[in-house]
Amino acid sequence: MNADRLWASLLDMARIGPSPNGGSRRLALTAEDVAGRRLLLDWAEALGCRWRSDAAGNLFIRRDGEEPGLDPVAMGSHLDTQPLGGRFDGVLGVLAGLEVLRTLHERQIRTRRALELVVWTNEEGSRFSPAMGGSGAWTGRLPLEQFLAAADKQGISLGSALAESGQAGTLAQGEPNLDAYFELHIEQGPVLEEQGQPMAVVNGVQGIRWYDLIFRGQSAHAGPTPMNYRHDPLMAATAFIHKLRQTILADSSQAARLTVGDIEVADPSRNAVPEVVRLSVDIRHIDDGQLEYLHEQLIALARSSAALEGVEVDVEPVWHSPVTHFDSTLVSAVQDAAEQRGYSIPIMMSGAGHDAVNLSHVTPTVMIFIPCRDGISHNEAEYAEPQHCALGTQLLCDAVLQRANRD
Amino acid sequence: MNADRLWASLLDMARIGPSPNGGSRRLALTAEDVAGRRLLLDWAEALGCRWRSDAAGNLFIRRDGEEPGLDPVAMGSHLDTQPLGGRFDGVLGVLAGLEVLRTLHERQIRTRRALELVVWTNEEGSRFSPAMGGSGAWTGRLPLEQFLAAADKQGISLGSALAESGQAGTLAQGEPNLDAYFELHIEQGPVLEEQGQPMAVVNGVQGIRWYDLIFRGQSAHAGPTPMNYRHDPLMAATAFIHKLRQTILADSSQAARLTVGDIEVADPSRNAVPEVVRLSVDIRHIDDGQLEYLHEQLIALARSSAALEGVEVDVEPVWHSPVTHFDSTLVSAVQDAAEQRGYSIPIMMSGAGHDAVNLSHVTPTVMIFIPCRDGISHNEAEYAEPQHCALGTQLLCDAVLQRANRD
Repeated sequence: MNADRLWASLLDMARIGPSPNGGSRRLALTAEDVAGRRLLLDWAEALGCRWRSDAAGNLFIRRDGEEPGLDPVAMGSHLDTQPLGGRFDGVLGVLAGLEVLRTLHERQIRTRRALELVVWTNEEGSRFSPAMGGSGAWTGRLPLEQFLAAADKQGISLGSALAESGQAGTLAQGEPNLDAYFELHIEQGPVLEEQGQPMAVVNGVQGIRWYDLIFRGQSAHAGPTPMNYRHDPLMAATAFIHKLRQTILADSSQAARLTVGDIEVADPSRNAVPEVVRLSVDIRHIDDGQLEYLHEQLIALARSSAALEGVEVDVEPVWHSPVTHFDSTLVSAVQDAAEQRGYSIPIMMSGAGHDAVNLSHVTPTVMIFIPCRDGISHNEAEYAEPQHCALGTQLLCDAVLQRANRD
Repeated sequence: MNADRLWASLLDMARIGPSPNGGSRRLALTAEDVAGRRLLLDWAEALGCRWRSDAAGNLFIRRDGEEPGLDPVAMGSHLDTQPLGGRFDGVLGVLAGLEVLRTLHERQIRTRRALELVVWTNEEGSRFSPAMGGSGAWTGRLPLEQFLAAADKQGISLGSALAESGQAGTLAQGEPNLDAYFELHIEQGPVLEEQGQPMAVVNGVQGIRWYDLIFRGQSAHAGPTPMNYRHDPLMAATAFIHKLRQTILADSSQAARLTVGDIEVADPSRNAVPEVVRLSVDIRHIDDGQLEYLHEQLIALARSSAALEGVEVDVEPVWHSPVTHFDSTLVSAVQDAAEQRGYSIPIMMSGAGHDAVNLSHVTPTVMIFIPCRDGISHNEAEYAEPQHCALGTQLLCDAVLQRANRD
């Protein structure tokens, strides 16, 4: 593979929909997103590849194999970005796949099984909710009607954006049947960088639970109300967060995660005890049993914190995504392929969701991570070192070739 | 005194600027406020009283005494209300003073010193900031120019509202010199009700310190960022609040108070570690030394909580009002007067500010509290029992007469 060519293509793609501070802005199915896809298709057509799209606008770029009767091996990711997104999230997985195709083309290598380079529609979920929609629709995990009905802030439906942009095609849902799916991605976290690891194989994705909590107390004047007469929902919420955090930090696997991304006081006044406090909670774990334990702890701590303060609490579960396990054979195969290049790479779970989660429900799936600077992603400052991009692409290439050529 | 007449006058006044749910809405210097003042003046004129107002619109209603050379004894409070205010906050103190005048008139009692019933302008601060403005201007603690320059949300200055409403007069600032100032008020807290006390004498007002805190951390994706890699400003803020609360609750006097009336995350996202969290803190104590100790603890805990999480914190002191001490002779006199009616009443500090705080800097001052239901105030549901209003008014009458007639 050609590291310079890969890097140049990453920069070329980033120039489509450039954002103010050096990132990219290609929201799903906008003119920029379509232009990015067109650039990819131009590159692929130059290699003699043909392509199709399905009703969800997912692109399948095919390089035929020697045995047309065998299921193809797929690589892929997404080209759409966050509103002020980076140049690597998703794009790396797609252009690494392109680099694999280019390398094979250049060296005139035929694989036993065909290869499919896939671009999934609306992975980010920034313009249309939910995220990972294209892969959801293709795998049948998200009903196509629901996918098409999602509307952006201007009220434009995903279906009409697809029609207007000409991205929808006639490939049947779930076609072609895949032999395996590989996705290279930046880690979007700080672990590989901190540990000095250039790559990792990903064996699954953390389970996630989302909650909305509302603590309801009694508003009171800050001055004349002694502490022991109060029913302060903010103090209950604070105690709850503090104690849940202790539980999370006490997790022996160190894999439990807690994020309170939002907290707000209704009708705030600096000299009044709040009446209503709302907050969101995101907990994650690599083990479903432990996640269930944290769920129970969360509810118990919310109730006990509220009771101690004499306030009410509602805990509303908003979303639950169980732990995803990727294919253990593929995990070993990727690790072995790295070993053959002299790298002993770690196995890790992904903290973020990816199209690979949907794919793992219909075909053997695995991911490869490379580090990104300071763990920063979903940000214009997102950056991955050229040598890490190249190493990850080489590993993708090796693993895909091995899979495609196996007996 | 006549309890029924007092209660009827309270209800009559509440009918001026009635609010949707049974409270009152007489924002300072609006037509409703002016109509309320006019009603009071009509009642006072019927007793043969004369009245003047000063440049701040404060009303001084005078009942002459036997010895014109002696300084008058004043009673008073305010008639303006919160936007959705109650019927007793401020109004009780004014109409109790009126009931004292009515009783003396009815019984044809002359006092040695003259009496002044004072209505302070813009006590609430809801329309014009700051609160307690009229008494601030009269005592010279708030420069008159600053008082007059305050503008409401429509951009109308207090000065022009005064001119338009005809409430400003020619009485010189600080005139007349007062022998003493008495203010009856609802407690605005739950203590008297909970303790079954019908009255209390108030020996001062808690010291207050206000702060704005900003915790600045590093935004990160909730999934891929392990807990020990995070710099989470919300967790720092939560730990800070939790620990400061422990310090407050450990105060041996049980007089320390902590209110976090507002907390917010900048650009919140449920699956992202926040970058910036802002919160307000209100701490109070009846002892300046202890308040200073809490101030130091607050700063130390903010810094240590931030350091533990690896985030930055700015602590901005917004306001500091030291402890106010009322006149100890008057406190004893009120307590003695209650004793003579068979009531052993407690001494307490006020948690809220009152015009009496300003007055205490220029003349011997004391307050009397009566309970209000559930401690609720600044709310249409605010309520005080008729018998408590009557008892407080009787005590005010007794104490004022004794003061006015002393040698």
